[in-house]
Amino acid sequence: MAPARITDLDVVDIRFPTSRELDGSDAMNPDPDYSAAYVILRSDAADGLEGHAFAFTIGRGNDVQTTAIAALRDHVVGRSVEAVCTDPGSVGRALTGDSQLRWLGPEKGVMHMAIGAVVNAVWDLAAKRAGRPVWKLLTDAPPEWLADQVDFRYIEDALTREEAVALLRKGKDGAAEREARLLAVGYPAYTTSPGWLGYSDEKMVRLAEQAVADGFTQIKLKVGADLADDVRRLRAARAAVGPGVRIAVDANQRWNVAEAVEWTNALAGHAPYWIEEPTSPDDILGHAAIRKQVAPVKVATGEHVHNRIVFKQLLQADAIDVLQIDAARVGGVNENLAILLLAAKYGVPVCPHAGGVGLCELVCHLSMFDFVALTGTTEDRVIEYVDHLHEHFKDPVILRDGHYAAPTAPGFSSQMHATSIAAYRYPDGTFWAADLAAQQKGTKR
Amino acid sequence: MAPARITDLDVVDIRFPTSRELDGSDAMNPDPDYSAAYVILRSDAADGLEGHAFAFTIGRGNDVQTTAIAALRDHVVGRSVEAVCTDPGSVGRALTGDSQLRWLGPEKGVMHMAIGAVVNAVWDLAAKRAGRPVWKLLTDAPPEWLADQVDFRYIEDALTREEAVALLRKGKDGAAEREARLLAVGYPAYTTSPGWLGYSDEKMVRLAEQAVADGFTQIKLKVGADLADDVRRLRAARAAVGPGVRIAVDANQRWNVAEAVEWTNALAGHAPYWIEEPTSPDDILGHAAIRKQVAPVKVATGEHVHNRIVFKQLLQADAIDVLQIDAARVGGVNENLAILLLAAKYGVPVCPHAGGVGLCELVCHLSMFDFVALTGTTEDRVIEYVDHLHEHFKDPVILRDGHYAAPTAPGFSSQMHATSIAAYRYPDGTFWAADLAAQQKGTKR
Repeated sequence: MAPARITDLDVVDIRFPTSRELDGSDAMNPDPDYSAAYVILRSDAADGLEGHAFAFTIGRGNDVQTTAIAALRDHVVGRSVEAVCTDPGSVGRALTGDSQLRWLGPEKGVMHMAIGAVVNAVWDLAAKRAGRPVWKLLTDAPPEWLADQVDFRYIEDALTREEAVALLRKGKDGAAEREARLLAVGYPAYTTSPGWLGYSDEKMVRLAEQAVADGFTQIKLKVGADLADDVRRLRAARAAVGPGVRIAVDANQRWNVAEAVEWTNALAGHAPYWIEEPTSPDDILGHAAIRKQVAPVKVATGEHVHNRIVFKQLLQADAIDVLQIDAARVGGVNENLAILLLAAKYGVPVCPHAGGVGLCELVCHLSMFDFVALTGTTEDRVIEYVDHLHEHFKDPVILRDGHYAAPTAPGFSSQMHATSIAAYRYPDGTFWAADLAAQQKGTKR
Repeated sequence: MAPARITDLDVVDIRFPTSRELDGSDAMNPDPDYSAAYVILRSDAADGLEGHAFAFTIGRGNDVQTTAIAALRDHVVGRSVEAVCTDPGSVGRALTGDSQLRWLGPEKGVMHMAIGAVVNAVWDLAAKRAGRPVWKLLTDAPPEWLADQVDFRYIEDALTREEAVALLRKGKDGAAEREARLLAVGYPAYTTSPGWLGYSDEKMVRLAEQAVADGFTQIKLKVGADLADDVRRLRAARAAVGPGVRIAVDANQRWNVAEAVEWTNALAGHAPYWIEEPTSPDDILGHAAIRKQVAPVKVATGEHVHNRIVFKQLLQADAIDVLQIDAARVGGVNENLAILLLAAKYGVPVCPHAGGVGLCELVCHLSMFDFVALTGTTEDRVIEYVDHLHEHFKDPVILRDGHYAAPTAPGFSSQMHATSIAAYRYPDGTFWAADLAAQQKGTKR
């Protein structure tokens, strides 16, 4: 019998009209329409399983992202399902190594996000075949196999394969107990839901109080548009949540180095826990300079850091206190493994970026692996949580008392409902077709 | 009368079958098909002038690049021709500032190259309307206007607007004499034509000897695939050109930091002038570490450096001896102005990357401006030259005795012949249609 093969790579442009409620609004992104350039890997295997994943965008350009994913089709279609699922790292290497597509990065921007989507779809398929959630697949895997998944190119000056294997072996000590604790308690979360820049003070305070009531011990506010507004909002939030709840603030890259220092220090009286994305995600030395001048406020970044090589340098330069991985920006689970290993070596806590559409669903698997089988701790570690769009996912995240519950369904929790895809497919899904028709009639849905 | 407007932004996928001759082959790019995601801006102005420019790619993915350019159409179409041509910087800011498209970078990869293409098309149109080549438009411009074109966001910690204006004012001293010298002598070039990895030793030596006979005082060899081959080729090239000709070597990102140091030092006996792209273009700290360990061999990089923020840090970290701008990777003339100003402030010579298709045509304008009206020198400065595909351009570069002649035609020298576009448009141009038909018949053109 011929081995099962990947038979198709489908791509769908899915967009949600989130800008209409100012959900997700911040100083750089006033009106995002949360979107997914969505991939489905199909095979001729008898099990009928599919691999689903996506790149996350905020609206315009989602068509560029789907075109980039489609450009990877020939690298995947025709491959043995068994081969790719037992070695997803080989797919990652083949995609990042395409000598012509590489010119469009290398390993950054649209093309790298496309690679991440395809690699994550392979991980979803691999985990479904293994009958386990991705976090469990990773925690059960031998250290040597995990190290094989990592591309050490350009990071060996900071982390060798041997060091990675040693960290992963050490991570096995006590893993069973931690897994039991994870299943019982979950992984700590913080919430950004109160803090969008487009919300009124009253709505922000109400949501901040609700967050504390819901068991969160950290919230986050967007800042960076107007200093007086930020001081007023932070003061109101601090009054609402009291001194025991951490309040992170997030400038979404709004500032130059000097502005970041000045603005952060102007907020310091209300004890912000971290300043997130104070400047360009490319500015390693800028973050290092800011960090020296805003301590004890911590410096956090990562959601726009495009690959392991930049994260390596942020660590080498002592530029960050908090490393924020994103599940759908870098080259998939494989590259996030490299980044988690780098953070573990340098002793910097990882607090993932999430929200958008589906980012919570994906990234919690990575933090849970980190807790159970790598760093062994959740101290000073929280996963971002935003209560948006989870209803579109087959296995949505579940929050309990400010903690992410460990996913139990096989896969990467990355699969959307077929009905959601049919409705929000752009521009021909049922929602958008009706919306367009309504707009043409001069009414607004 | 209504002011003239930009009426359309056309995009064409143009590909040349260069891989068939191994032209352009190196350790990371074994088989490039030099391609252009080509933009044409049209207007309803009575002069009938069009703005032409392109993003350069090496084959696969040129369709992704054209899709990205098309995503920018609504930012440009409908704008006043006068307004965009008197302030191209405003177009650059509008394109990089699109709050949704920004998510796909920011300022890197496919989306940023697309922005560069559109911005450069505006500069081509502006220079054609002014009846001057771009280098002359820049050298004649007031310092304040040039500074207005620069986006200082994220670089003010290294270069303020005031410092930029001061550098540009100083650059005016003696500019008329230098312009006369430029017109008489041209700008020094070096050639990479002998050094492609796919060439035999005999072809390499023959082309190296020819380069010296043609007046070049520097050549470049590709390295990084096999050390013994590299030592043999460098020895043969050194014997062919003698001790007085500089030989640069180029690893095209092939190595980790330690490998770069070891390999470069193994070649040091044959006196390479610079080692180019020893490692990942994202690795600022890696380049700094390499530079310390391979001196007196110089470290050069830049063709894949994605924006001014990374160049800023390469300079701040003393990571490079030679800064290699590329005309079609960053956000167009505006961002290259920022990079030239940073290099001038830090006293690092700029030796542009060129070759591919049309990169020589574009980038010489920037070096010529740098010589006439910014740094005022060509010492240790050379523009790469490769003798490929110039015949497709309306105003091709002219080399005389190892020097680029100053372009005299109005514009950015970026416009291809309509016949070339019609032939190499992919996949439906006359060349590709015939090629495909021949392949289907089992013959090879």
